[in-house]
Amino acid sequence: MTVNITVLAGDYIGPEIMAAGLKVLAAVSEGQNFDYQLHEMPFGGAGIDQTGEPLPAETLQSAKQSDAVLLAAIGGPKWDGVPQTPEHGLLAIRKALNLFANIRPTEISPAMQKYSPIKNTEPVDFVIVRELTSGIYFGKPRETTADYALDTMRYTNEEIERITRVAFDMAMKRRKHVTLVDKANVLDTSKLWRKIVAQIATEYPDVTYDTSYVDAASMKIIASPSQFDVILTENLFGDILSDEAAQTTGSLGTIPSMSRGTDGPSLYEPIHGSAPDIAGKGIADPISMIRSVAMMLTHSFNRADLATEITDGINQTVAAGVVTPDLGGKATTDEMTKTIINHI
Amino acid sequence: MTVNITVLAGDYIGPEIMAAGLKVLAAVSEGQNFDYQLHEMPFGGAGIDQTGEPLPAETLQSAKQSDAVLLAAIGGPKWDGVPQTPEHGLLAIRKALNLFANIRPTEISPAMQKYSPIKNTEPVDFVIVRELTSGIYFGKPRETTADYALDTMRYTNEEIERITRVAFDMAMKRRKHVTLVDKANVLDTSKLWRKIVAQIATEYPDVTYDTSYVDAASMKIIASPSQFDVILTENLFGDILSDEAAQTTGSLGTIPSMSRGTDGPSLYEPIHGSAPDIAGKGIADPISMIRSVAMMLTHSFNRADLATEITDGINQTVAAGVVTPDLGGKATTDEMTKTIINHI
Ligand SMILES: CC(C)[C@H](C(=O)O)[C@@H](O)C(=O)O
Ligand SMILES: CC(C)[C@H](C(=O)O)[C@@H](O)C(=O)O
Repeated sequence: MTVNITVLAGDYIGPEIMAAGLKVLAAVSEGQNFDYQLHEMPFGGAGIDQTGEPLPAETLQSAKQSDAVLLAAIGGPKWDGVPQTPEHGLLAIRKALNLFANIRPTEISPAMQKYSPIKNTEPVDFVIVRELTSGIYFGKPRETTADYALDTMRYTNEEIERITRVAFDMAMKRRKHVTLVDKANVLDTSKLWRKIVAQIATEYPDVTYDTSYVDAASMKIIASPSQFDVILTENLFGDILSDEAAQTTGSLGTIPSMSRGTDGPSLYEPIHGSAPDIAGKGIADPISMIRSVAMMLTHSFNRADLATEITDGINQTVAAGVVTPDLGGKATTDEMTKTIINHI
Repeated sequence: MTVNITVLAGDYIGPEIMAAGLKVLAAVSEGQNFDYQLHEMPFGGAGIDQTGEPLPAETLQSAKQSDAVLLAAIGGPKWDGVPQTPEHGLLAIRKALNLFANIRPTEISPAMQKYSPIKNTEPVDFVIVRELTSGIYFGKPRETTADYALDTMRYTNEEIERITRVAFDMAMKRRKHVTLVDKANVLDTSKLWRKIVAQIATEYPDVTYDTSYVDAASMKIIASPSQFDVILTENLFGDILSDEAAQTTGSLGTIPSMSRGTDGPSLYEPIHGSAPDIAGKGIADPISMIRSVAMMLTHSFNRADLATEITDGINQTVAAGVVTPDLGGKATTDEMTKTIINHI
């Protein structure tokens, strides 16, 4: 059986790191009875340039018919002020593929601690499960008049339920601890989250369940991140906290993410942006993309064996000091990628 | 002339640190031609206990007739699940006094760097100017049905304009740099903020003006906080980012804040909460409250001379190592307060 993967290289460093990810995918699957076909499609700024749309119809069509989607990074100054931005394409593909659960790991292993801007010395290992297709990103009405503007943060019971199950199922495979982050002392939507999540928590008696206000959570991510296992939160809070959490690792360029729905393809992408400032220099850190490939192998194709090979290859490469400038090294994207492949 | 100060000691450690603040106020104003009268009123949980309301009518009346309001801290587990929480009292007094501008300083001086959880070694000195009486905290409609809940983030042009002027006026007295934090790639309200703030920025040609998305700002506060001077932002973003920023100092217990309107009294309070876990032990850090008193002297009573005496007293006390457990010391609230007074 051959699986289909839609490849969205996107903008600026996007194509550079995507090339690295695909090389590693080719290397790790060789002779491993894993056959795949790639469908490279325009998306984001590249979509605008080629078709006028950040999410061209044929790109969405390809994604829908695929078994997984790999995305590198989109956006940048080239498309400032266009009516449909690259970011609109991102929001549109999330909605169209119903990718309601965005999963972002934050890990600070002893080996990576030196890159962290935080003095904290305990190992950190948590995931943020962010609701991705509702809340204030998509709520109606949204309105701008001559005198005011408004946005609507809206959640249905069902939207909260399905993401909550994702978080608790994930906790069952981890340290069995879920923290709901909200602003229930102020927001009606947060009160609804508290009510529904508390109900579902009773179905998971083995999982420790607690809550934190979002302002307090933004402190704990710095002060005591080891306390977290799975953080469950709504779209906007997840956006802010996952970037903060990523920054605490000091190695943004290494962090992958997964966005999934109920059925249909999942989407895998680095959590960072398209880094226009270093585009074309061949020095972008490929780890986030390569780890996105590994996440895809595990979660979409049940090939954790191949993902482990990739992860081991990355760890050995980092341990050997063959790293790009963001991690204080001198390696190019290509050199780092080749070294990872040599370790596979 | 005698000025009137409404005193809201509040809950848990609230009365302990308020007592410290008032002792320092008495000491610093002795023989300095600064006469004041205190009006101690119930508020928050104490308001609920004494009158059934977190913001009793006579408390609000007193605040309105005063020249300034000092607040320590409110809330705690004792009032879990009551219909009108202590926090409702806080939101209500902000709205009733029209305290639309909340000003929270973040400073990491060389002397305080050892308390910071961040490895960064550059001095940090910025203020967050947070809009405090609008946005999703107060926007209508807010609704909960059997199937969904919603909150509304709403801003009028005028609400944005007045807080923007506060931020730019403040920048003129500082390093002349304003950063607007928003989520203009997603929210209509943020797009309105961008438009209006850009217009007003043209009235301040000496001020460097830039913008940051809120998710990126949550990273920069950790990665490169020295770049900020004045951060201007809406209510919810300000809530999250100001707590994050406070945490980067490692000394939450030392940070004051000011909330002001157009005319009428301003309100001064520590940025931290009522710390139920250490209440009654006499070990709460009084610095945040004492610095709130200093802020009041400067901004409500034009007595920066007295404020400077307080600040010097605090610095000498900290330098002498007479600090409470949150700063790694063994002093009690009382010992620390007495030492500060001795240095005045
Ligand atoms: C680009 C932007 C719309 C997007 C978001 O806010 O979701 C990004 O910040 C992210 O987190 O993937
Ligand atoms: C207690 C709560 C309602 C309040 C807020 O969110 O404004 C607090 O977090 C603050 O920042 O003063």
